[in-house]
Amino acid sequence: MTTDLSSVSDPDDSIGRVYLVGSGPGDPDLMTVKARRLVESADVILHDKLPGPEILDQLPSEACEDVGKRAGGERTTQEYTNQRMVELAREGKTVVRLKGGDPFVFGRGGEEAVYLASHSVPFEVVPGVSSAVAGPGVAGVPLTHRDHASSVSFVTGHEDPTKDDSAVDWAALAATGGTIVVLMGVGKLPEYTDALLEAGMAPDTPVALVECATWPTQRIACGTLETAVDARDRDGIEPPAITVIGSVAATRQQVREFLRNDPSNRTSEGDGR
Amino acid sequence: MTTDLSSVSDPDDSIGRVYLVGSGPGDPDLMTVKARRLVESADVILHDKLPGPEILDQLPSEACEDVGKRAGGERTTQEYTNQRMVELAREGKTVVRLKGGDPFVFGRGGEEAVYLASHSVPFEVVPGVSSAVAGPGVAGVPLTHRDHASSVSFVTGHEDPTKDDSAVDWAALAATGGTIVVLMGVGKLPEYTDALLEAGMAPDTPVALVECATWPTQRIACGTLETAVDARDRDGIEPPAITVIGSVAATRQQVREFLRNDPSNRTSEGDGR
Repeated sequence: MTTDLSSVSDPDDSIGRVYLVGSGPGDPDLMTVKARRLVESADVILHDKLPGPEILDQLPSEACEDVGKRAGGERTTQEYTNQRMVELAREGKTVVRLKGGDPFVFGRGGEEAVYLASHSVPFEVVPGVSSAVAGPGVAGVPLTHRDHASSVSFVTGHEDPTKDDSAVDWAALAATGGTIVVLMGVGKLPEYTDALLEAGMAPDTPVALVECATWPTQRIACGTLETAVDARDRDGIEPPAITVIGSVAATRQQVREFLRNDPSNRTSEGDGR
Repeated sequence: MTTDLSSVSDPDDSIGRVYLVGSGPGDPDLMTVKARRLVESADVILHDKLPGPEILDQLPSEACEDVGKRAGGERTTQEYTNQRMVELAREGKTVVRLKGGDPFVFGRGGEEAVYLASHSVPFEVVPGVSSAVAGPGVAGVPLTHRDHASSVSFVTGHEDPTKDDSAVDWAALAATGGTIVVLMGVGKLPEYTDALLEAGMAPDTPVALVECATWPTQRIACGTLETAVDARDRDGIEPPAITVIGSVAATRQQVREFLRNDPSNRTSEGDGR
């Protein structure tokens, strides 16, 4: 399994290629044609749990290496994943590093790209449908609107805990006047809705919460900046979920009767308010 | 071609379905599996030029209706497209409304969804890879970085000219401290780089311009907030193009020697600075 990383004398001839591949939001049909082809032909697929159960179930198991959790439940380090990509490429393998959503949207794909380049490993980025885009979409919420949302910002609700202070300027995000999409948006919902209210955003600003977007277990809850925490608790919205904040979120109520994106078109999802 | 839109007595039994489909950034391999299947099976595909030449060339021509331009070059109105979707659905047709990128990111998909729902037409949103995500990706530019870009904002450089004043608050976008991606970002590059400089963004903030992302004609130019206009002019970057502004844009220089996304891996693209 291990090779001396310095022993390959002519990487141009013998080295494999790494594909940093976005698997999309979770519905296998929302993988790109290229992602689908690559996972079917790769020598090794390095993945974690983020692509979601439906995609993971369809991967060729003989090619899969789970770098999300190690035996015993300990989390694999980013450094291990980085080294493993280089090691496999130097064995001449075609490697897919499969990442949920898009590899370059809150996915550490950038760090992996820099590591590969710094070790002279050729790689290719294969963009995917980000759940930050797909989540609102399947909920019937456009991210922008020419009359009332000229921008959209993506931010993570789950910051790097090693940071000294919050790097997210919620007041500045509120001041843009655009739509705000919070990835990993469940746990700290009280904190950032408070921050946005303090920044002067209207309490009745519409909010939509989308759990497991495009998965068979997709669930949606709606409220306002003031009631979003109650909506979350009432409907038991759990991670993974995204939060959409802005006037566009009200579009869901206008269209949902005719929207056919819900996996089962169930009527008991608890958001008919 | 025309039907009395009020003559369908039982829409539940006879009405077709409309799919608002994102075609991705232009590379046919970056269409989703679902988008590919839908364009192959739809009765009618309503499209404009935005999906790009490679995808348009692969569509079944007998199903295609161009709603981007009419004969004589006059632009089809949004109202015509809206009515045509309803009309076709009421004829029982399966209709794909094919849109470049993602249908809900600066695509008027939201307006089309509201129109369909208000006319009782069932529809489904099929998210796609936005060029705002794919453009930076194929240029080797991550949209976020856990150390120095906690958010990313998408904004259009080409505003609705009927608006009384600019709805884009560039100072607020600068204040977020996150990455800024400008779609349709070529023409007004001087105006918004000036606005960002005036807002206090550092003149040496890295900038990357990506023309025709993922198309065979893809081209990339790099500079800073201060030199971006020169870079655009020097390399002749033309629409359609996106602009990425932020420290992450410097990643391209770190990785480009090993990045294999360029359609031809050409070395004369004029961005080796």
